[in-house]
Amino acid sequence: MCELLGMSANVPTDIVFSFTGLMQRGGRTGPHRDGWGIGFYEGRGLRLFQDPRASSESEVAQLVQRYPIKSEVVIGHIRQANVGKVCLVNTHPFSRELWGRNWCFAHNGQLAGLEGSTTFYRPVGETDSEAAFCDLLNRVRRAFPEPVSVEMLLPVLVASCASYRKLGVFNCLLSDGDWLFSFCSTKLAHITRRAPFGPAQLKDADLKVDFQSETTPNDVVTVIATEPLTDNEQWSLYQPGEWRLWRRGECITHGKA
Amino acid sequence: MCELLGMSANVPTDIVFSFTGLMQRGGRTGPHRDGWGIGFYEGRGLRLFQDPRASSESEVAQLVQRYPIKSEVVIGHIRQANVGKVCLVNTHPFSRELWGRNWCFAHNGQLAGLEGSTTFYRPVGETDSEAAFCDLLNRVRRAFPEPVSVEMLLPVLVASCASYRKLGVFNCLLSDGDWLFSFCSTKLAHITRRAPFGPAQLKDADLKVDFQSETTPNDVVTVIATEPLTDNEQWSLYQPGEWRLWRRGECITHGKA
Repeated sequence: MCELLGMSANVPTDIVFSFTGLMQRGGRTGPHRDGWGIGFYEGRGLRLFQDPRASSESEVAQLVQRYPIKSEVVIGHIRQANVGKVCLVNTHPFSRELWGRNWCFAHNGQLAGLEGSTTFYRPVGETDSEAAFCDLLNRVRRAFPEPVSVEMLLPVLVASCASYRKLGVFNCLLSDGDWLFSFCSTKLAHITRRAPFGPAQLKDADLKVDFQSETTPNDVVTVIATEPLTDNEQWSLYQPGEWRLWRRGECITHGKA
Repeated sequence: MCELLGMSANVPTDIVFSFTGLMQRGGRTGPHRDGWGIGFYEGRGLRLFQDPRASSESEVAQLVQRYPIKSEVVIGHIRQANVGKVCLVNTHPFSRELWGRNWCFAHNGQLAGLEGSTTFYRPVGETDSEAAFCDLLNRVRRAFPEPVSVEMLLPVLVASCASYRKLGVFNCLLSDGDWLFSFCSTKLAHITRRAPFGPAQLKDADLKVDFQSETTPNDVVTVIATEPLTDNEQWSLYQPGEWRLWRRGECITHGKA
């Protein structure tokens, strides 16, 4: 199993606090020693940091923790390898360009016997996760050669995720830098922080932050994670089969496959 | 104008020394203040660091200088913006997946009136450089829907570069992680270091390195740059229209468009 981290916000927000919590699970408080990665959108641009080493020991992870990159959408992942050896090419998140936008994807779970299409996008590495991402983008591209709204797109995303879920465990995060789509097959949690902001205490590290002093009253910031990252706030758990579409911190639509 | 940096080596080699020289030109000894980026291949995996800020002031650039990432192929770039505003999405190098491999591209120059095809790959940002990269990949894909050897591919690469060159200045570096293709429209230099290795002195910073102590007798390392990076070694200059294909540090074929 792996751990996912997602963020959707209505103002560029740094994810240092949540990322610090997640990183502890990469070899210190969790068993996810086989690499980590995080993608930050800056407008349509995607800044990707990845390391096949354990996040709790990674020099690049330390940079990311020190360096408050502000972003409206973030997708992070720490990995415990099931399929594919531990190397850069098998490290999430994965990205591809579609319709002139950078799409970014991370997956938690395992799929058995996926026969992904390779018409357009092909995996570079050996993971079932990247194969599923390529297959999903191939389905989107086949259905819509030209750009459509995310509302039009949604049925293809949901149907694809539902089909992968039949092959095993498929919790995922997907974004094009504007919206953040999340699908829960077994385990995913979310929290939306907005005014009045309060303090938060990480579960996995001795770190507390008072969001009040770091935010303005109009900020809306949603964080999604495999398991709640703080122990003094109320996280909501996704139901199995539940999907949610986030944009600028708000859940704009949701449903169940 | 921008500055290019490329490396092809037969063993994983760090590029800290050359990168340090290049970074000085990003706002200190050179006028290239509008961002920088560098892509390191690790096998088929591509690790990309980019920053729209001047490289001489960038925190990420400092990390890359401290952190000796070993790679067999590297493509770096510092930018002085001509076309497209200064932001992440307009920062070289650009990358796309083709045939299940990560392709990486950086360009120095300016193209006027490029009408790039967008059949398959589309630019995310606004630069002529990314448009040319997408057009080039679209030509490759149209000519060869399935993978072919670089020898088969070469005529398409050379013909594409020759056509872009008609629109302005087109010095470029392109790689799929195995080979490194370089095309000179106006300015490009290369040096191949092999045993016996000697000392090298950067032109742009007070830094000297003795490659003897960092290498083994079988290492072959080629560095390509817009202008020579050291002042005590003999660099070779490309002729206008000259292209060279590098693999594992050696020039395996070259010609003139």
